[in-house]
Amino acid sequence: MLSSCRKALYTLAKHSARSFQSSAMALSRFEYVKQFEQEEKLLPNCWVVVRIDGKGFHRFCNVHTFTKPNDLDALQLMNLAGMTVMQEFNEIAIGYGQSDEYSFVFRREASVYQRRRDKLVSYVASLFTSAYMFHWKRIFDARSVTMRYPPSFDARAVLYPTDENLRDYLSWRQADVHVNNLYNTTFWNLVASGLSNSDAEKRLQGTLASDKNEILFSQFGINYNNEPLIYRKGTILLPKSVCIAEKKQKLIVPIFDDLIGDAFWVKHPEILDKKAKSDDAFELGEDLSQPVVRYQLEVHTLRKAGMKKLETSMSTLQTDAS
Amino acid sequence: MLSSCRKALYTLAKHSARSFQSSAMALSRFEYVKQFEQEEKLLPNCWVVVRIDGKGFHRFCNVHTFTKPNDLDALQLMNLAGMTVMQEFNEIAIGYGQSDEYSFVFRREASVYQRRRDKLVSYVASLFTSAYMFHWKRIFDARSVTMRYPPSFDARAVLYPTDENLRDYLSWRQADVHVNNLYNTTFWNLVASGLSNSDAEKRLQGTLASDKNEILFSQFGINYNNEPLIYRKGTILLPKSVCIAEKKQKLIVPIFDDLIGDAFWVKHPEILDKKAKSDDAFELGEDLSQPVVRYQLEVHTLRKAGMKKLETSMSTLQTDAS
Amino acid sequence: MLSSCRKALYTLAKHSARSFQSSAMALSRFEYVKQFEQEEKLLPNCWVVVRIDGKGFHRFCNVHTFTKPNDLDALQLMNLAGMTVMQEFNEIAIGYGQSDEYSFVFRREASVYQRRRDKLVSYVASLFTSAYMFHWKRIFDARSVTMRYPPSFDARAVLYPTDENLRDYLSWRQADVHVNNLYNTTFWNLVASGLSNSDAEKRLQGTLASDKNEILFSQFGINYNNEPLIYRKGTILLPKSVCIAEKKQKLIVPIFDDLIGDAFWVKHPEILDKKAKSDDAFELGEDLSQPVVRYQLEVHTLRKAGMKKLETSMSTLQTDAS
Amino acid sequence: MLSSCRKALYTLAKHSARSFQSSAMALSRFEYVKQFEQEEKLLPNCWVVVRIDGKGFHRFCNVHTFTKPNDLDALQLMNLAGMTVMQEFNEIAIGYGQSDEYSFVFRREASVYQRRRDKLVSYVASLFTSAYMFHWKRIFDARSVTMRYPPSFDARAVLYPTDENLRDYLSWRQADVHVNNLYNTTFWNLVASGLSNSDAEKRLQGTLASDKNEILFSQFGINYNNEPLIYRKGTILLPKSVCIAEKKQKLIVPIFDDLIGDAFWVKHPEILDKKAKSDDAFELGEDLSQPVVRYQLEVHTLRKAGMKKLETSMSTLQTDAS
Repeated sequence: MLSSCRKALYTLAKHSARSFQSSAMALSRFEYVKQFEQEEKLLPNCWVVVRIDGKGFHRFCNVHTFTKPNDLDALQLMNLAGMTVMQEFNEIAIGYGQSDEYSFVFRREASVYQRRRDKLVSYVASLFTSAYMFHWKRIFDARSVTMRYPPSFDARAVLYPTDENLRDYLSWRQADVHVNNLYNTTFWNLVASGLSNSDAEKRLQGTLASDKNEILFSQFGINYNNEPLIYRKGTILLPKSVCIAEKKQKLIVPIFDDLIGDAFWVKHPEILDKKAKSDDAFELGEDLSQPVVRYQLEVHTLRKAGMKKLETSMSTLQTDAS
Repeated sequence: MLSSCRKALYTLAKHSARSFQSSAMALSRFEYVKQFEQEEKLLPNCWVVVRIDGKGFHRFCNVHTFTKPNDLDALQLMNLAGMTVMQEFNEIAIGYGQSDEYSFVFRREASVYQRRRDKLVSYVASLFTSAYMFHWKRIFDARSVTMRYPPSFDARAVLYPTDENLRDYLSWRQADVHVNNLYNTTFWNLVASGLSNSDAEKRLQGTLASDKNEILFSQFGINYNNEPLIYRKGTILLPKSVCIAEKKQKLIVPIFDDLIGDAFWVKHPEILDKKAKSDDAFELGEDLSQPVVRYQLEVHTLRKAGMKKLETSMSTLQTDAS
Repeated sequence: MLSSCRKALYTLAKHSARSFQSSAMALSRFEYVKQFEQEEKLLPNCWVVVRIDGKGFHRFCNVHTFTKPNDLDALQLMNLAGMTVMQEFNEIAIGYGQSDEYSFVFRREASVYQRRRDKLVSYVASLFTSAYMFHWKRIFDARSVTMRYPPSFDARAVLYPTDENLRDYLSWRQADVHVNNLYNTTFWNLVASGLSNSDAEKRLQGTLASDKNEILFSQFGINYNNEPLIYRKGTILLPKSVCIAEKKQKLIVPIFDDLIGDAFWVKHPEILDKKAKSDDAFELGEDLSQPVVRYQLEVHTLRKAGMKKLETSMSTLQTDAS
Repeated sequence: MLSSCRKALYTLAKHSARSFQSSAMALSRFEYVKQFEQEEKLLPNCWVVVRIDGKGFHRFCNVHTFTKPNDLDALQLMNLAGMTVMQEFNEIAIGYGQSDEYSFVFRREASVYQRRRDKLVSYVASLFTSAYMFHWKRIFDARSVTMRYPPSFDARAVLYPTDENLRDYLSWRQADVHVNNLYNTTFWNLVASGLSNSDAEKRLQGTLASDKNEILFSQFGINYNNEPLIYRKGTILLPKSVCIAEKKQKLIVPIFDDLIGDAFWVKHPEILDKKAKSDDAFELGEDLSQPVVRYQLEVHTLRKAGMKKLETSMSTLQTDAS
């Protein structure tokens, strides 16, 4: 790192007076500080999970009057932000979101930013954040909820050497949403029925999953298994070839399913093995109505319509873009 | 890392069947994957610089019709985003922005997130991004520039062991803006005078700083030294006690000054030595008109006015907030 | 890292005078420096290769008159040192030595020193070095070669996420010994035949493997494929259950074989899969005469013979030992 | 890390059959595994402390009948090993040894192995180990103590950003030897006086330094402050210019002194500031009799005497050495 040439620079920077004639000279005099950058590169051939987490979202939810225990719009906004990240990186094999967190799984062979940790972690956090804000109006204008202050997310990168480790990671997150959602659903129903927050907490202390299921059913007539899948299982995002108007098109598709068992992995073999991609187009079914899908189809339609109109301006644009 | 207890979990996870009764059991079965998180902590007692960089801002500037070589509004928006970051972290000693980048210098003793690299780097990137979007309308509504797509920034953390290294880092960034801005100012004036981009490039090939100054002066009547300081020196942000309406108040203050020479550091000793904070309030002078200052004063006035009105709602809010 | 408690210590250390009454106080005053230790832990569930490399062994070989291109005794000494390392760590699945280097492959689940990088790398280097010196006399006394100065080795740790990556690593080292040994064998035969070093070098410039084989055969009557396996393939060390005097015993066994093809891995499935250990004892065959084997059998015999005699002293020893 | 060129290699390695014609081809096919090496480089401009620690030295001391609480010969052997390390690296500013540990402080600007962590840590551990074994006979032959099994040491690297942090590190180690040695001296005197180990332990539980001093004085007539400095303060090693036979010569000099107070640092300013080296030769005084000094003078004398005799052979040697 301190090659003789750079050491010379360093010595120069230290001993020369702090005034200078030429700006280029100044630049080179201080450039030695670049050596202090330590660019960790993530181990090759491992799965890279980048997980986004909301900062202080308890307060953010309150200020923006999100519904408890689950706000469907807020979850859809998270999904739109997740979709934007996956559109940007074609090396993401699967995305998984629940509550105020989102996990993005980069393929073993991903070479994005040469696998530099700082770049990857910060860029995913930044892009997720800006997409979250960008799509806000689309989701919340109907409810007249204005953003009161900017939200933010942190991120971390975690490496998994084997497919089994990766599946266990995703299972861990999905088991987590199950445990939390069963608790929260029971808790907020108790509160809605008149208990104070602390009384509801006491009521649930030490209860098992079966106890909570029982409270929900006997006291509130709720069969937990009939609760929406998006609340119980979170949202899986997969890049799929979808048939739209008889043409195949690449879409980021939301899926609400159990991913702990084997069935999911048999149904979507391309997640673990890129080459396993089937030629069959993916059937959207009722997911056509999901905001993530509707948004992509709208953009697609707009692009097609505007193709001619945009031709001149876009070509200029592309020439300028780096 | 693989303590016997956790190893037991791991073995359980590997060998037990992939079906389970209790959700809590499932959670604990997969929890071993947490061990794969490797939380690097930044070396204590070093200055920590987190530098934000715009991703693909060449294109972003073109799409949003930013003025060349400098767009004052776009720079002020960067400053508002920088201000937001500095309001969030009271351990930042100095911020420095130029072009589409911003550096935040955390004090040697900063303990934010226990100095965890991933958290710090991603959160600063995310907060800067959301603040940039949040303040967009304040700056660009007057020009009727709508945001066409979400911008993003990456970030990196760099450690500097000595005060001298830190000063040299900041000098490096300021020398960089000088070199680039002199070039860009000359380049875009040549283009404005009728040269093609490539002809302007050729014209400047191999020229020294003095040559560019000469071109600007003789051909365009521009004395480069009279160009606005914000273009030539970038923006320095410092937390200062400012006297407003005869009351001292903490503000993030923008300063346009040379920071390569010693004078700046003599004038602001608290940057390098927290205990050197003077009791004298900082004089804002003409910087009162800077958007960063005006924004903070507005918020301050609003808060004061709304104090009574907000009292009830805020108290509720604070109880809920974590 | 800088918890409030430790920060208090730190402040104390900085501001208190540099004199003190009690030694315990002094100790605690300076203890904050422990926080600067950054203990990297190697990613779980990856293969860990620790590779030892001789420092300046060109000179060491010359000073100690090692035979060129291969000194069988020197290689056997390396093997004895490798054996000692493998006796110390039962989590090593395979060792591989060639020239002045040795690779030790720790199992995916190895928990040695909690996988702390510095500890593992330095201890393996140290133990290999001391074993090399310890066994020196056993090998070189017959040749009356005294050690003139202490040898040393460096070490590095490399992680491999998949079995395929690990096999490719070992194949890389074995392909390397092949390329080097064919070159060296031809080179030193040319030199022995009267060519100067530089003439021999020129003669070999640009030659393919087939050319070197041809030179060896036509000029020196050497069929390269008949050269000893230990020169052409290096030494593989495996922990095996061996039948000795009708009792099974654990030994570190040297194997001279191709490990690039699949056959080797079919024959020794326990390397990649610990549970695949067969119940059959390993047949030593002609490897019984290898110094590594002879040494272990000698120690075994000595231990058995001395059992009674040592009983008293050993029990004392074991009580004292940590 | 996964540049397109290397990725091609990687793909080749994965998909091609496991047989090959040319050895060079094989080598290149597997070479992609080199990318998995992650070479951490130590932050520039920080002090680098490499600390060596004996592995299982409790047992090693017992087996080799070292005297308790301090074995002067064993400490001198540690010092000889420390000396060898300091002769090898001219970038070490100071060495400090106590008990079975040794710290080596590399200068801020040290560029050894480009500051690669693995290399530095492992090589220092290896060299210290081999020097310890190499000098064993010189120290222990007089006592007829044969080495029964190879000793080993681990090592770690720790970075210190400021001179104050570095001084505090060394103070920490010296305060540690004080605390331990006062305890051990009292403990072993109690045991020598007839107490069992556990009774001596109980006797000392909860005692302060003053209590231990009192026990030593009243019960055993020992004034702790008159105990040898090497036991109470450890050994400091410094590279010094020494006047020998009226010629200046570079020696590694052992110093037994307090390094917690300022006096030591005023006396040896070159430790913290390389340029502060005085022109005056260092006065050895009574340290002339230290084994570390005697050894270096012997080697010096031998070299001088043998200069002529060695001329021929050495020149050959130097030509061969890499």
